[in-house]
Amino acid sequence: MRDVFQQQLALLDAQLLVMASSMQDAVSDAIKVMEDRSDDLAKKVIDGDDDIDRQEREIESLCLKLLLTQQPVAGDLRRVSAGLKMVGDIERIADQAADICETSISADEAFDARLAVHLRRMGECACDMVHDAVEAFVEQDLEKARAVVGRDDEVDALFDAVKTGVITTIQEGSGSANGLIGALMVAKYLERIGDHAQNVAEWVGYSLTGYYKGDLIG
Amino acid sequence: MRDVFQQQLALLDAQLLVMASSMQDAVSDAIKVMEDRSDDLAKKVIDGDDDIDRQEREIESLCLKLLLTQQPVAGDLRRVSAGLKMVGDIERIADQAADICETSISADEAFDARLAVHLRRMGECACDMVHDAVEAFVEQDLEKARAVVGRDDEVDALFDAVKTGVITTIQEGSGSANGLIGALMVAKYLERIGDHAQNVAEWVGYSLTGYYKGDLIG
Repeated sequence: MRDVFQQQLALLDAQLLVMASSMQDAVSDAIKVMEDRSDDLAKKVIDGDDDIDRQEREIESLCLKLLLTQQPVAGDLRRVSAGLKMVGDIERIADQAADICETSISADEAFDARLAVHLRRMGECACDMVHDAVEAFVEQDLEKARAVVGRDDEVDALFDAVKTGVITTIQEGSGSANGLIGALMVAKYLERIGDHAQNVAEWVGYSLTGYYKGDLIG
Repeated sequence: MRDVFQQQLALLDAQLLVMASSMQDAVSDAIKVMEDRSDDLAKKVIDGDDDIDRQEREIESLCLKLLLTQQPVAGDLRRVSAGLKMVGDIERIADQAADICETSISADEAFDARLAVHLRRMGECACDMVHDAVEAFVEQDLEKARAVVGRDDEVDALFDAVKTGVITTIQEGSGSANGLIGALMVAKYLERIGDHAQNVAEWVGYSLTGYYKGDLIG
């Protein structure tokens, strides 16, 4: 019975990894679409989102089945419940990646060059946070998970810079309105990716320690 | 032992209700702030957000404790796991309410009158969805939960109307840039509230039936 349980836990880890890897690809592809507005790559990310939604439901189903049939305790319980929460954040990140693609290709033209500098840097930060949060999960590395938390400050500051840049450009009466609004929405999606990456890292930390956002829970 | 468990389940329901009610107040107050830009009411919502975050952690803690110590099965397990997922959506709704307040009071002036009409309607829809999702949870009413799902189509359509209105107003060169961007961000926050209200309703449905977004899970 315990062997079956250990196999199912390993399956949960493997499924989470496949999903996290699909999500990571979606984010890095979305950053590319933001730059080069490739319709094909955008379509790949947008179409792929359904598959990530399906993976979320499968993992939720597996987590609930494990809770129901195996009644895990202590560390195993934390692992399953962290998985159950984490998939929600991973799915939301993939959603934002699809939103970035839709917004980028529906803009009239490439984003304003000054804004594009901030967006590129936001994309790099958000991508790094996602990558490190997933790696912390794979390696069960508490230090790496902790290092992700708080890194969204830079992403938040860059969002404010894009917002200020958009307002200034509107006031100057320059730039395409559609493009400016698109750049602002993409910045918002990148900021949300940073938030969700931080949540994933928090759940990895919880799974390893029982502490979530500084509080011992469970 | 079962009596203790039933008491703890009742406590979980009661805590979820208090949190949902705090969140509902935050949303309806945020809609007021969007209209009248009252600093005091905005401060109340923004300050109250920490308390809602604390409630989220307490409920997560209780859910995990219930899973750990009581090893619930079938309907009880669904109730606890739905609670564990639902608190995340409730907390995100309260976050967006605080974001609406911050954006509304930091705008130079009241939002453009044409946009304000759409924002008001979005606020009403989002508020109704939140209210009905919470009521479906309180009354364990599957029909009411199902009726919430899909209602975000109107909210999504209104978001597009605000976005188009903002772009047109920028192109006309009229209106304050800061106010236009603020209106767009508020519309985005309201759209997200609709999404999360729908998720809450989906979790109520899951708790009652075992089906989540059309799939039998667990």
